[in-house]
Amino acid sequence: MANNITIVELAAALGLSKSTVSRAFRDSEDINPKTREKILQKANELGFSPNLYASNLRGNKSHTIAIIIPEFGNKFFSQAIKGIEWVARNNGYHVLIYVTDHSAEKEADIIRTLVNGRVDGVIMSGSGEGNNHEYLKLLQNNKVPLVFFDRYYEDVPTACITGNDFESSYQATKHLITNGAKRIAYLAVNKDVSIGKIRMEGYKKALEEAKLPINEQLILDTSNDVHVNYQDIKTLIQIQHPDAIFASVERLAMSTIRVARELHLTIPNDLKLICFSCLDIADMLQPSLSVVKQPAYEMGIQATSQLFDILCGRKPDGIRNLLFLDSELIFQHSSRKV
Amino acid sequence: MANNITIVELAAALGLSKSTVSRAFRDSEDINPKTREKILQKANELGFSPNLYASNLRGNKSHTIAIIIPEFGNKFFSQAIKGIEWVARNNGYHVLIYVTDHSAEKEADIIRTLVNGRVDGVIMSGSGEGNNHEYLKLLQNNKVPLVFFDRYYEDVPTACITGNDFESSYQATKHLITNGAKRIAYLAVNKDVSIGKIRMEGYKKALEEAKLPINEQLILDTSNDVHVNYQDIKTLIQIQHPDAIFASVERLAMSTIRVARELHLTIPNDLKLICFSCLDIADMLQPSLSVVKQPAYEMGIQATSQLFDILCGRKPDGIRNLLFLDSELIFQHSSRKV
Repeated sequence: MANNITIVELAAALGLSKSTVSRAFRDSEDINPKTREKILQKANELGFSPNLYASNLRGNKSHTIAIIIPEFGNKFFSQAIKGIEWVARNNGYHVLIYVTDHSAEKEADIIRTLVNGRVDGVIMSGSGEGNNHEYLKLLQNNKVPLVFFDRYYEDVPTACITGNDFESSYQATKHLITNGAKRIAYLAVNKDVSIGKIRMEGYKKALEEAKLPINEQLILDTSNDVHVNYQDIKTLIQIQHPDAIFASVERLAMSTIRVARELHLTIPNDLKLICFSCLDIADMLQPSLSVVKQPAYEMGIQATSQLFDILCGRKPDGIRNLLFLDSELIFQHSSRKV
Repeated sequence: MANNITIVELAAALGLSKSTVSRAFRDSEDINPKTREKILQKANELGFSPNLYASNLRGNKSHTIAIIIPEFGNKFFSQAIKGIEWVARNNGYHVLIYVTDHSAEKEADIIRTLVNGRVDGVIMSGSGEGNNHEYLKLLQNNKVPLVFFDRYYEDVPTACITGNDFESSYQATKHLITNGAKRIAYLAVNKDVSIGKIRMEGYKKALEEAKLPINEQLILDTSNDVHVNYQDIKTLIQIQHPDAIFASVERLAMSTIRVARELHLTIPNDLKLICFSCLDIADMLQPSLSVVKQPAYEMGIQATSQLFDILCGRKPDGIRNLLFLDSELIFQHSSRKV
């Protein structure tokens, strides 16, 4: 392995993002053919191969990993799974997929089915429900390493690949303030889950810095029920009259756009909007949507690489190791000054 | 099992769609609480349970099924997988996921890893590449049943759950003609794959019926490379000057919107557009997008039910059994008369 390099090192050598580099190794992906050629040449030169781990993983049993996610359907999770499946397949691994519907109970049920040798490791984005994560000890006791991506539990010492959410939430909120917003509402996905809390902290920091009051009535903790969320967002807008909304997940921004339509409010004139989203058609929406775009595909790749590093014995298991990947802020019409 | 009914029978008894009914059994889904209550009551009355198959599947070995799909990232596949995972989990099954990147070679490689007892059955949407499907015999020889969804191979005798694509393509094209289009281009995903061919036949039937010429230069067979497709669509528009485009998959419509922007063409004024898409935000695009919306989630549920029927011995394996689910046609601004 001495002569082999990781995809991170290859990307650094090329001065390209890891996601661009990883795209070059897929057959028919969204990449400029010349860029692809350049990457493949450099990879050859430096000894990178997408199946870097394969020979070192042979000692493992099931050659299977599990992905556990709270929900299925948004672009973030599908891109992340795509990345995980890609690294796994290139290294001769199989990928099981489980959806918890944000339920800690289901998450625990799933974990219990995985410790009988079914999988060598688990990659999870937490359901975010409840505070008792004792069931995760089952994994540790059975020597099944766990790597979190996006939504992690602070009390569980393991590797986590997540976005630079504090910084990007701070920047997104600051951008709304710069564009004239004074009453900015924050729509939390779940204040108890890591991303819900950290994104809110970035929001609060930007308000404090601008000497704007932090008004708890402008902070809405949402549920997983779109109907309830729709009503709650509507009530928030009607009663609190925010002039901007920062949505911590995409689906809350979509509900906001629908509520605004119903209330005949124009975005961005009456209400500015920015949200976390991996939509690649945000520019085609009416109005084009300002987004904090997480590197979801890359997050999947990094999480799987971390897991394989542990399975190969390159890295220890059971140690808190937070890795932050930068999101991209794309400012479009929905948040602009009017 | 005598007193048990399937989800299809339950939906029929309620006069609701299968997808609405299945939503009621998820905890926190997009469904009106009153409708949910009504469904759960009826289910109780008639003896339906989402884990209908569980007790009859105990004899099987791995309690695992595989999903093989050509690509990952559009709403159609993520919704279908969501449906598959839901039925599987409710019946104590695990789900492996594989992406072929539209490569028949990768598809064959994956199939070869599945016949050693790793899975009890396979649910697949074909890569569409090549005509030699001999490798699928491996499944049959190893008594691993295969169910297709969406993209199937005509020469493989097995159950297929697909959309009523001929009819909906015919209706979509007819709609463009009714709204004044005379030079309608068709963007095929792949003329060799079932859905590419059948959707084109619906398009041709509508042209013939309206006594419009079938112009092969208005039919574009695309690749999986977005850059190549973008250029090809641009050339098609610049040279052939179509007044409408019918895109057989969502990503081709998105490229069309971008090309139209570059060429300063307004949709629908200069160019009408309709496409197959499961986007739930088609109405939020600029202009709102007319779509043929397949029941993807339901397709996943039906495919898994079919597979479990075979695994339970309720239905025979190795017999061609095509099941068509109706798509919904949603006409919005992108295709309207100007």
